[in-house]
Amino acid sequence: MGERAEATPPDATPPDATARVDGTPDDGTPVDGTHTAFSTTRLEAFSDGVFAIAITLLVLDLAVPPRDGLAGRSLLHALGAEWPSYFAYLVSFAVIGIIWVNHHVLCGLVRQADRLVLFANLFLLLTVSVIPFPTRLLAEYLTAPGDSHVAAAIYSATMLTMAIAFTLLFLAITRDARLLHNPLDRATVQQALRRFSIGGVFYLITIGLSFVSAVLTLVVHALLAAYYCFDQLSATRA
Amino acid sequence: MGERAEATPPDATPPDATARVDGTPDDGTPVDGTHTAFSTTRLEAFSDGVFAIAITLLVLDLAVPPRDGLAGRSLLHALGAEWPSYFAYLVSFAVIGIIWVNHHVLCGLVRQADRLVLFANLFLLLTVSVIPFPTRLLAEYLTAPGDSHVAAAIYSATMLTMAIAFTLLFLAITRDARLLHNPLDRATVQQALRRFSIGGVFYLITIGLSFVSAVLTLVVHALLAAYYCFDQLSATRA
Amino acid sequence: MGERAEATPPDATPPDATARVDGTPDDGTPVDGTHTAFSTTRLEAFSDGVFAIAITLLVLDLAVPPRDGLAGRSLLHALGAEWPSYFAYLVSFAVIGIIWVNHHVLCGLVRQADRLVLFANLFLLLTVSVIPFPTRLLAEYLTAPGDSHVAAAIYSATMLTMAIAFTLLFLAITRDARLLHNPLDRATVQQALRRFSIGGVFYLITIGLSFVSAVLTLVVHALLAAYYCFDQLSATRA
Amino acid sequence: MGERAEATPPDATPPDATARVDGTPDDGTPVDGTHTAFSTTRLEAFSDGVFAIAITLLVLDLAVPPRDGLAGRSLLHALGAEWPSYFAYLVSFAVIGIIWVNHHVLCGLVRQADRLVLFANLFLLLTVSVIPFPTRLLAEYLTAPGDSHVAAAIYSATMLTMAIAFTLLFLAITRDARLLHNPLDRATVQQALRRFSIGGVFYLITIGLSFVSAVLTLVVHALLAAYYCFDQLSATRA
Repeated sequence: MGERAEATPPDATPPDATARVDGTPDDGTPVDGTHTAFSTTRLEAFSDGVFAIAITLLVLDLAVPPRDGLAGRSLLHALGAEWPSYFAYLVSFAVIGIIWVNHHVLCGLVRQADRLVLFANLFLLLTVSVIPFPTRLLAEYLTAPGDSHVAAAIYSATMLTMAIAFTLLFLAITRDARLLHNPLDRATVQQALRRFSIGGVFYLITIGLSFVSAVLTLVVHALLAAYYCFDQLSATRA
Repeated sequence: MGERAEATPPDATPPDATARVDGTPDDGTPVDGTHTAFSTTRLEAFSDGVFAIAITLLVLDLAVPPRDGLAGRSLLHALGAEWPSYFAYLVSFAVIGIIWVNHHVLCGLVRQADRLVLFANLFLLLTVSVIPFPTRLLAEYLTAPGDSHVAAAIYSATMLTMAIAFTLLFLAITRDARLLHNPLDRATVQQALRRFSIGGVFYLITIGLSFVSAVLTLVVHALLAAYYCFDQLSATRA
Repeated sequence: MGERAEATPPDATPPDATARVDGTPDDGTPVDGTHTAFSTTRLEAFSDGVFAIAITLLVLDLAVPPRDGLAGRSLLHALGAEWPSYFAYLVSFAVIGIIWVNHHVLCGLVRQADRLVLFANLFLLLTVSVIPFPTRLLAEYLTAPGDSHVAAAIYSATMLTMAIAFTLLFLAITRDARLLHNPLDRATVQQALRRFSIGGVFYLITIGLSFVSAVLTLVVHALLAAYYCFDQLSATRA
Repeated sequence: MGERAEATPPDATPPDATARVDGTPDDGTPVDGTHTAFSTTRLEAFSDGVFAIAITLLVLDLAVPPRDGLAGRSLLHALGAEWPSYFAYLVSFAVIGIIWVNHHVLCGLVRQADRLVLFANLFLLLTVSVIPFPTRLLAEYLTAPGDSHVAAAIYSATMLTMAIAFTLLFLAITRDARLLHNPLDRATVQQALRRFSIGGVFYLITIGLSFVSAVLTLVVHALLAAYYCFDQLSATRA
């Protein structure tokens, strides 16, 4: 009656609370490796930390032209020459922001996590926290004649891997109804997987597109981010 | 009577709790994109992370003069020459700190967030997390004859964008009474928007002022931060 | 009966909960600047973020000698020459860790924060988040003949400022009994202030000591940290 | 029946809540240093922050080859030459991720922390937050003829220290039944310590192995991480 929003409803036995309070001695397993249920609180806190840091670290790669390196150009001109880093910054910021929103939605379904979920989540966090690297790479090479294709392909492959990691996390969570607040019916799961697959195909296409034009590839990533963003906003109103 | 601030009142059905527990199957929307209500817990946690990182990353731009680059000057002299970076550091720290306090106050009104709020919040976080870049830029160019104006204008434009993003978040939150703990009357909203507009006009003026004097512009930003700080402190006692 | 540790007791009217739920319309003040009570949850979350980032950013200044810059020396020899940065790293890590524990204890007294507390806390966070800078400075100049004194004095002055900021936060919190879970009697406050003053005097002495020997100054900071650490551990058992 | 995992059981007097609410005036100790019980909420929040930052900062050491430094090589070729940094990155990411999972499990046993636990936890966080340094070191020197051994030994010694720190934290937590949700029987503690010892012996072996082959040492660290990961996953199903 006075529970917090995250609390489990009063009429349900909260398995994670039990697990933590009891130290799960009931199954006789040793203390250091066999808790089978986790509250999602720390999973979310740790994930939020990684998302927040990855999205904020991107700013470190917005280079300030050194004052004695302008070589007669104006600052504005020198900054203008850095447009690939601003462009890549904005796209990567949007991508991490959207995946955070999706992670938020996905975690909202979870009643408790087990180790497979924790490790699937860690794999997703790996793909998220690495994003500043391909972003820096693409910013540096976006206008390099031949190498731009390699940089764009690595950037696109990172996004594809992130999409796959998100799908794996979804599968890890939905594989066991006990992990969920409410069981999902098969149709809902299928529909979600279909959506993920379409997203994956798009990212696969951007890898191919990288060898046509790196700039165009980044534009497509920006459009995909905008699409996901508006798609979710329209879901708000639906 | 004994709930925490985040708790839903005992006499109300907590919509976010419901949303998370039920997975909102009631509207028949798929699981991966159509939750319509979010608890504010993770919104605040993620935002706090970004604020905390942005405000702490500023320190990375306080450059230590390399020991073999002093060229006969004393360390104190070399550090003194870095005053623009200390000045810019303090102003940006104060600005991020104040916007965090304001964000805190604004989130205190929110009972639940929807996607529009999440994305408006992401836009605000974009403007906050980018602040180390114009700060570094202004520190580097504050005393550069012509380029100081450009650097100061970019710094001021960032602040203006942040003010606009905050106003948009306020509008996103107050547009729907269901998102609030208590509906705000029209007069309160109008008064808040008037205040935001005045702040926006001041930031607009600093963009113009940038082309007069970059140092003066940074002084004005410091005074604005001090004003907001004392304005809020006096509100404490009121 | 089932509240969390942070919850206000069921028999008390929680002012922060009221403030957030009601949007404080009762005093007729506008929404954007006049909430007078804050839950401490976000204050702690934001502070924890800043502490965690500042303490972790220190590692960025543990420089790896570039492979092609060894000039015939072995790596071990080159790393050994970096001992000032390891020493400064460990001392600063301990200092931030201890101040975090103290902050933890202090926040445990607080039932609700007002704006003065928020800004006093921001000032403390400023002094904490800046620590990587004097740490880097001292590491670079610890063995520089004349400049080591300046670097050590700046390091010590940062610690003194942090101690002052902590005292100000303590005063801001204890100035108003309504902010506390339980009012503190005058003797307890006096005793705490006396302890803080003694700490401040010690830090003042380290500023003077800086002009005798920078290395000795850092040793004293290490001893002070060790003293505070063991002092608190003995308090555990008392 | 409906409490969250962190909640104290309804039939028990929550000692941490008492400590925070009362300010422990009962033992007459001064306010600034003698609280004897802490809620684990902030301990976990601060720890999660440090873990999240350390794991994300690793990405800063994935160097992008400068565009004008390729010297005729293709980008792909230049990136390929950086394989030690990717390899070290992945291993360190896995190690921090696994220690986070273990920390999560360990904290799940804790009902309240005292200062010894806080400081033991700080020591563990020191060993975790320093990991980006030996990672960078090993990445730089993995293929350096003689110095690779030193770099690998330092990396291995960091892991050993982390394992020791984890054991100390376990001992600090289990030394006093009042700190636990449920007392652990002696056999469980012994079994856990035996497991920790075996892990420690393995890390000790990697220090020796470092002087045989740095690459092989990193491979063994990768295998150890994979073993711990799968070991924990199998515990999920047990």
